[in-house]
Amino acid sequence: MKIQGHPWRTIWPVQDTSVVGVVVQSAVEIIDQTRLPHEFVVLRLDTVHSVVQAIKTMQVRGAPLIGAAAAYGMALAASHEASDAALRNAGELLVASRPTAVNLRWAVERMLALLQPLSVADRRAAAWREAAAICDEDVALNQAIGKHGAALIEPVHTQHNRRPVNILTHCNAGWLATVDWGTALSPIYTAFDAGIPIHVWVDETRPRNQGASLTAWELGQHGVPHTVITDNAGGHLMQHGEVDMVIVGADRVTASGDVCNKIGTYLKALAAFDNRVPFYAAVPSPTIDWDMQDGLSEISIEQRSADEVAWIQGRTADGEIVSVNVLPDDSLAANPAFDVTPARLVTGIITERGVCRPDMLRSLFP
Amino acid sequence: MKIQGHPWRTIWPVQDTSVVGVVVQSAVEIIDQTRLPHEFVVLRLDTVHSVVQAIKTMQVRGAPLIGAAAAYGMALAASHEASDAALRNAGELLVASRPTAVNLRWAVERMLALLQPLSVADRRAAAWREAAAICDEDVALNQAIGKHGAALIEPVHTQHNRRPVNILTHCNAGWLATVDWGTALSPIYTAFDAGIPIHVWVDETRPRNQGASLTAWELGQHGVPHTVITDNAGGHLMQHGEVDMVIVGADRVTASGDVCNKIGTYLKALAAFDNRVPFYAAVPSPTIDWDMQDGLSEISIEQRSADEVAWIQGRTADGEIVSVNVLPDDSLAANPAFDVTPARLVTGIITERGVCRPDMLRSLFP
Repeated sequence: MKIQGHPWRTIWPVQDTSVVGVVVQSAVEIIDQTRLPHEFVVLRLDTVHSVVQAIKTMQVRGAPLIGAAAAYGMALAASHEASDAALRNAGELLVASRPTAVNLRWAVERMLALLQPLSVADRRAAAWREAAAICDEDVALNQAIGKHGAALIEPVHTQHNRRPVNILTHCNAGWLATVDWGTALSPIYTAFDAGIPIHVWVDETRPRNQGASLTAWELGQHGVPHTVITDNAGGHLMQHGEVDMVIVGADRVTASGDVCNKIGTYLKALAAFDNRVPFYAAVPSPTIDWDMQDGLSEISIEQRSADEVAWIQGRTADGEIVSVNVLPDDSLAANPAFDVTPARLVTGIITERGVCRPDMLRSLFP
Repeated sequence: MKIQGHPWRTIWPVQDTSVVGVVVQSAVEIIDQTRLPHEFVVLRLDTVHSVVQAIKTMQVRGAPLIGAAAAYGMALAASHEASDAALRNAGELLVASRPTAVNLRWAVERMLALLQPLSVADRRAAAWREAAAICDEDVALNQAIGKHGAALIEPVHTQHNRRPVNILTHCNAGWLATVDWGTALSPIYTAFDAGIPIHVWVDETRPRNQGASLTAWELGQHGVPHTVITDNAGGHLMQHGEVDMVIVGADRVTASGDVCNKIGTYLKALAAFDNRVPFYAAVPSPTIDWDMQDGLSEISIEQRSADEVAWIQGRTADGEIVSVNVLPDDSLAANPAFDVTPARLVTGIITERGVCRPDMLRSLFP
C-alpha cells in the first residue's frame, strides 16, 4: 500500500555488500509501529534477538506480520549460525515472544521443516528465500481475502440505494498488520478501489490504540473516509442502524470457528448479533489453528503490562510526543490483550479460499 | 464520604457576610472533577451562568449531582433576580446545558414549582432552603440504595465460600456523581463497611476516563480494593467467571426499565446477559422518567465534542498535567456520550424503595 503516494511493505530484507563484493542479505527493516501516527520511523533489525524484541514491544504486530517477522528472525539466526541447535533455539525464542497469535508458531515450524533437512551450508540462503516466499504468499492470501470480502460489501451498497457502506472494525487488521493489503481492511481497500463508497467506523482499541493510531492512519493515507470512535460506541451505533457490517482480523481461529482477536472484539460481536449486523473475521489460513476446538478453554490469552492501561502516548499541542498516566497513584490495572468470540456469534470467516460459516472451515480446507 | 480521612460532599453553599453584617448565602463550591485524580481543586460558582458552564464542561457531572447543581443554579439566579421571567430563563439555560440526564429537568421543575407561587421577596431564601433540601434528600436516597444493594452483594459472598465479591462498574456512579454516597457505588461502600470483602473492576470509561480518574480515585480513598481495566476487557473477564455482578448508575431510566447510561454500558449488559452475570442499575427515583417508555427511540443522546476522543489528559513522568492527541492529523472522530440498555438485559433496578425487575418499576412507585 502507499504512504504519501509511495508503495511500501511493512517488512523487507536489506542487502549489504560484503568486503569481497558479494551482495548478502544481512538485516531486515520494519516500520516502527509504536511511533505512528505522529512519527514515521524505519527500524533495522540485525539479529533474531532484535526481532524478538520488536515483536514483544509491538514495533511489529498483527498476526500475519509477526509470522513474517519470525520467518526473517529465523533467516537472521541462520545467517549467524545455522546448526540444528541454533535454529531450534531461535525458533523457541520467537515462539515465546507472544503467546496468542498462531502465525508465529506456524512460520517458525515452516522454516524449521524446510531448513533442517538441508546441509548447514545451504541453510542461510534457503532461509532468506523462504522468508521472502512467506511474505509474498501473505500478500497473495490477503489479496484473495480482499476479493472475497469485497463481494460481501458490494451487494450491501446496492441494497441500500447506493449509499456508502458503513463498516466497523476493531484494532488494526490493515496492511500494517500484514506484509501488505491487510486482512480485515483488504476487502475495504478492494471494494473502495472498485468505486464502492465506504465509510469505516474505527474503534480506537484501548489500551494501545491501534485503531486510532494505525487503522485511522492507513485508511487516511489511502483516502478511505473514516471516523474514530471509542471502543464503547459501536453498540450504540449498531442500535441506530449506523453499521452495515463488522469486519475484524484474528490472531487465532480454532477449527470450530471461535475467533480470538484483540480484547473487546467479543463485545462488538455480541452487539452485532443483538442488532442483526453481519460479523465477519478475515483470516488467512495460517491463522487457523486446526489443533484447537474450544477457543475459550484452549487459547492462552496474553496478559500484558498494566502500564499499557495507565500510560497513553500522544502528541501535545506543541508537537511533542509524550506519555501521560491517567490513573490515580495507588490504583492497579489489569491488561488481558485478547478475547475469544464464540463461533455462534460469527456470521462468516473470510479466507483466501472464500467465505464460509465458522463451523464450515473444514469444507474450505479439506 | 472521606478524602484523606476528612468528610466531604461534592457541592455545598458558601456563606458570606454582607456589609451590614448579615450572613447570606451567595455562592456554591464544588470539587472540580476535571482535575482529578491528579489534582484536587475546589471551585466557587457565583452565578447561574457559571453553574451552566460547570455542567457543560463536566466540572460537575453525574445525573444526581447535576440535579443538585441545577437546584443551586436556580438559587443563585433567585439571588440575582427572582422575577418569574428571570427564573424561567435560568431554568431553560440549566435544562439545555446537558440533554440526557433527567435529574436536571426534574430539579429545575421542582424549584420553579416551589418558587413561582411565592412572593418575589420570599423566593431567594426559599430557593437556598430547597436546594439544600434536594441535596439532603439525595444523600438519603443514596443511603437507602446502598442498603438495598448491599443485600444483593451479601448472599454472593456467602454462596462463594466467603471469597471477595467481584463487581464490575462502568463510568463513575460513586459519591462524586451524587451529593454523597453515590448510586452504583453506594451498595459497594455499604457492604464493604459491613465487612464483606469486595473487589471492583473499574472500566476506565473512554473518552473521558471517569472510571480511571474518578471511580478508581474514590474507591482508593475509601480503601476498597479495585483494578482498572479498559472498556474492552469486561466481556473477557465475565467469560472466565471473574465478575459476580455488574452495577452501574443511570442518567435516565424509562418507565419500562430501559437504562440510559454512559456510552458502553449496553456492551457490558450484553456480555453480562451472555454469561448469566446479574446486571443492576442503581437509580434514585428522580432519575426515572415516567413520561418515557422506549429508551432507544425516545431519549435524546448527547453528542459531545470529537476533541474528547482525540485528546487525553494525564500526568507525565515529570508530574506535569498535559493533554495529548492520539489521532492522525486528518482523522475525524465521533463522540456519542450515552447509550440505552434495553430492559430485557437488566436483572434489576436498585432504588431507594428496594430492588425490582425493570418492568416492575411502577409497582415500587405506584
